[in-house]
Amino acid sequence: MAAKGVKLFGMWASPFALRVEWALKLKGVEYEYVNEDLSNKSEELLRYNPVTKKVPVLVHDGKELAESLVIVEYVDETWKDGYPIMPKDPYERAQARFWAKYAEDKCLPAFFAVYFTTGEAQMKALQETKESLKSLEKALEGKKFFGGETIGYLDVVVGWFPFWVRIVEEIAGIDIVNGEDLPLMNAWFQRFLDVEMVKKSLPPKDKVYELNRARREKLFSGQP
Amino acid sequence: MAAKGVKLFGMWASPFALRVEWALKLKGVEYEYVNEDLSNKSEELLRYNPVTKKVPVLVHDGKELAESLVIVEYVDETWKDGYPIMPKDPYERAQARFWAKYAEDKCLPAFFAVYFTTGEAQMKALQETKESLKSLEKALEGKKFFGGETIGYLDVVVGWFPFWVRIVEEIAGIDIVNGEDLPLMNAWFQRFLDVEMVKKSLPPKDKVYELNRARREKLFSGQP
Repeated sequence: MAAKGVKLFGMWASPFALRVEWALKLKGVEYEYVNEDLSNKSEELLRYNPVTKKVPVLVHDGKELAESLVIVEYVDETWKDGYPIMPKDPYERAQARFWAKYAEDKCLPAFFAVYFTTGEAQMKALQETKESLKSLEKALEGKKFFGGETIGYLDVVVGWFPFWVRIVEEIAGIDIVNGEDLPLMNAWFQRFLDVEMVKKSLPPKDKVYELNRARREKLFSGQP
Repeated sequence: MAAKGVKLFGMWASPFALRVEWALKLKGVEYEYVNEDLSNKSEELLRYNPVTKKVPVLVHDGKELAESLVIVEYVDETWKDGYPIMPKDPYERAQARFWAKYAEDKCLPAFFAVYFTTGEAQMKALQETKESLKSLEKALEGKKFFGGETIGYLDVVVGWFPFWVRIVEEIAGIDIVNGEDLPLMNAWFQRFLDVEMVKKSLPPKDKVYELNRARREKLFSGQP
């Protein structure tokens, strides 16, 4: 018989695994966390997610799920009497899903490119990141959080930006989000990081800083 | 006051607009279709979807929605007493969303690359397309359709493959899906194309063939 309970396969510095942790914490669901070594993935992870082989993977009562956004919706639908993550109204829900897809397709690759490039390519990526965040900012108009008065689906999806963007700004020595160009986003960054549940769940900043600094250094060390 | 009713901004040969048409037809929702000239988009489309500027866009009682997968879920949730598109069970729903994302992220770009490349690059893309469809085939095991006995969300999402793959096979003169390598997928291709609603909604094959053949020719005419 399949084991009961909830098990999350993540990696301590994975923003995508963190989304699932946030969803579970918002619902008050107890879970076991398995920290994967991504350079030497466990047999269990590969058995549970043979298709993409990526974290996060959630195993609930023996049934496995992959893809962070899919898992977040599953958590919301399964523990449906708990904290509401998705908006109740179908139109609001569609808007949240639209912006989540936009953030994944536009903001994320542009931001990663800022981090993994230098010179002209980096300036182009920086411009794209700012423009895409400016679009995303529309979803914050008149609201404290993307979810309204409290955090919701879209906050969970893009909530890693505030933490990681600040770290990348430090490592790369550039300014990505400030109160002048992106006032709503900048204010939300701080507001989100001040949420008690978020504060308690973030990995140690110095460790994430060091991991990412080393990754970037390694990447560029092989380049002319 | 916002206009009542349902209006779909699409383009007759867009597989993504077709997804939305299928969802609306499954639900029996009446709609007005606006065929966009993608080289000269209407002001209305740009006003309704200023962020990505793409079709499909659905306008329901004056409220606009973009992104085909988001719209399909919205249609299912809004006309919830009609034909069930998403699976009822949250786990099944998560699986359908997982495979939809996989198809978008892996199968689609590989298939497009088959079409827009030649020589070695094309052979590599062909291999990737076949491998990704082999993975996707798992979602068909023991079932007539991805949705089970009848078509559901994942059929709507990947239902354009059967029609377009056959056309690209003809244009590019290569074999992508056959009964030997991909028996379940191959059988589903025919089964999906035989669904009456699908048959009636597909654009004229010769026009799609000609459009795509011309596009490919134009692309390669500028190359050495």
